[in-house]
Amino acid sequence: MRTQVAIIGAGPAGLLLSHLLHLRGIESIVLESRSREEIEATIRAGVLEQGTMDILDEAGVGERMHREGALHRGIELSFGGQRHRIDLTELTGKAIMVYPQHEVIKDLVAARLSAQGQVLFEVSQVAVHGVETESPSVTFTHRGEPYVIEADFVVGADGFHGVSRPSMPQQEQRQDFQRIYPFGWFGILVESAPSSDELIYAQHERGFALISTRTPTVQRLYFQCDPSDHVDNWSDDRIWAELHARTETNDGWRLKEGRIFQKGIIGMRSFVSTPMQGGRLFLAGDAAHIVPPTGAKGLNLAASDVALLARGFEQFYRQGSQERLHSYTEDALKRIWRAEYFSWTMTRLLHTFADATPFEREMQRAELDNIVASRALATSLAENYVGAF
Amino acid sequence: MRTQVAIIGAGPAGLLLSHLLHLRGIESIVLESRSREEIEATIRAGVLEQGTMDILDEAGVGERMHREGALHRGIELSFGGQRHRIDLTELTGKAIMVYPQHEVIKDLVAARLSAQGQVLFEVSQVAVHGVETESPSVTFTHRGEPYVIEADFVVGADGFHGVSRPSMPQQEQRQDFQRIYPFGWFGILVESAPSSDELIYAQHERGFALISTRTPTVQRLYFQCDPSDHVDNWSDDRIWAELHARTETNDGWRLKEGRIFQKGIIGMRSFVSTPMQGGRLFLAGDAAHIVPPTGAKGLNLAASDVALLARGFEQFYRQGSQERLHSYTEDALKRIWRAEYFSWTMTRLLHTFADATPFEREMQRAELDNIVASRALATSLAENYVGAF
Repeated sequence: MRTQVAIIGAGPAGLLLSHLLHLRGIESIVLESRSREEIEATIRAGVLEQGTMDILDEAGVGERMHREGALHRGIELSFGGQRHRIDLTELTGKAIMVYPQHEVIKDLVAARLSAQGQVLFEVSQVAVHGVETESPSVTFTHRGEPYVIEADFVVGADGFHGVSRPSMPQQEQRQDFQRIYPFGWFGILVESAPSSDELIYAQHERGFALISTRTPTVQRLYFQCDPSDHVDNWSDDRIWAELHARTETNDGWRLKEGRIFQKGIIGMRSFVSTPMQGGRLFLAGDAAHIVPPTGAKGLNLAASDVALLARGFEQFYRQGSQERLHSYTEDALKRIWRAEYFSWTMTRLLHTFADATPFEREMQRAELDNIVASRALATSLAENYVGAF
Repeated sequence: MRTQVAIIGAGPAGLLLSHLLHLRGIESIVLESRSREEIEATIRAGVLEQGTMDILDEAGVGERMHREGALHRGIELSFGGQRHRIDLTELTGKAIMVYPQHEVIKDLVAARLSAQGQVLFEVSQVAVHGVETESPSVTFTHRGEPYVIEADFVVGADGFHGVSRPSMPQQEQRQDFQRIYPFGWFGILVESAPSSDELIYAQHERGFALISTRTPTVQRLYFQCDPSDHVDNWSDDRIWAELHARTETNDGWRLKEGRIFQKGIIGMRSFVSTPMQGGRLFLAGDAAHIVPPTGAKGLNLAASDVALLARGFEQFYRQGSQERLHSYTEDALKRIWRAEYFSWTMTRLLHTFADATPFEREMQRAELDNIVASRALATSLAENYVGAF
């Protein structure tokens, strides 16, 4: 097999890149280890910045998002028994779209397949070769048969645990930046109407909680937990008691309960691996960087990475210049470090750290008070949240 | 001896309170362990917020400050070889006054003495008694003779190491919040013209530096150091080399050298002790709280504490109500926690922490980049710096 850009991973980054390249007349093949059903059912992030909406629209896959997604013009901060609204639109002129990542995936898969795009699911034994030459290749197994794709470039969009990052050349010269947090998020999916028109980020001495939504009938709720805890330790009753304790406010508002139909625990880390280019292999999305979900930036960073790569490949195939491809790491990192910074500050602001000193707890409370009291600080939070700067 | 308010400590807090009370017709006596010459010569802070200027004006001691002080409408942040101006006045409508604390002290001592105020210098063996009764007293020795002051109230404005805080009742119920930083500031006084029209806060991998000024011919420079270091280890040449390395920028700007006529090392801590009232004993200024000097808030907090106390005593003597005095801790802490938060964030932003991980160093750089890139974040810094909120 032969293509221009071999893409490893059919997450939002890989699929979106493939479609953006297609629209520029550039061929690609996407390889994915999971099945189509699996990637279309995996519940992940759900907050899209304006810039991400713009990229999806540019790719022609934004139609259902605009129809079924929910535009949110504010978020709520809950602490000290009170809720405080951050009016995103008043402060920044922008809004965010709540539209689940797996719906984005469905839209992208549908768009790729209807354009006769090649997306190979359930591949295994993926390996990358010759990335420091002008003719890299990817070998893999599909339905029991070995294959090789000869390509001009390879893009690793296969997530944190994928094969791409370990395949980057000059491993000894790579630099990783990381923080692993001493807590995780316990996430549940609930059949119920939304409890709130907007997302609620709750800081509480028992730990963080997030009241989020997926659809008018499915709610996504999270609460900070021990990352080594097990879902079996959490009965539905215990989960609701914990969520109520962390989110109740003095105004009588109360979280709506419903049937819990999924439970899971996710770890939390901040991670950046540089450079994002090694010869003809490029990393995009979670393969290169992880943010804790508190800032809702993961999917948005994946989209901005591949928007840069699409422009880089377009420049190469139209003008023969690799200038943009060569500045990919530098260009992408500007946005990535901002998102890492914001995700880290939101995580620090809202979670309970078991080892925090009394002074540090007071600093956390002072920061929350300042955000509510200072329009400037609230504007900074809002700008970062909507991706306005 | 008998007075209405016995004040321990002739720093800015004690002297200013005494004068504010005098203007309200309330008698006080100020006790100070050092000599007048010593307190008038001790070089300390030098940045006054608008609110502090207003209090000094209200006390009738602002005349020389306005004549000899320098109004600064911006500060500079230096990092990555570049300087970035934070335009305080454009962002907040306010400015700060650079006027040394010991000049404030001189103005206050002169005002107290010309009003026949009682300020007793070089007292020793100060002790506080009966603060949980309605007739507290202070005993001390002056010129070899023992004295006792019978008073209605006692105010402890005798600094972090003074006798007042340990004299607060119900010690077992007190709560202290503290962070001791793993670095100090090496401060020098230099005979030279100013190197810059505005204060320069320099972040550098070798450590923080601050280019500050006292008068047109005396400059105050600081650089982050090991708090256990000794001034004898630092020759003038070594000091200048270190300051140049930390402050040089790509535009060719260079720090002016001059004769160094004082060297000293100060430790850095954040500290808050609550409550600030115990019976008829009140704490003000450094006796109750310490901020690292990075935010230039110490003197300003002392002034706002005593402004609250002056209003509280006025209410008591005019209306017989202790309502304001009883809410002193709560009222003062609002401003104190904000200042503690700002001082902590400025300290964290600008200093080099030896134990910082590579990820944490990138977060520090990202925060500096954000302040320069985001008007909202720069506004928040400016608001806090000028004390506008």
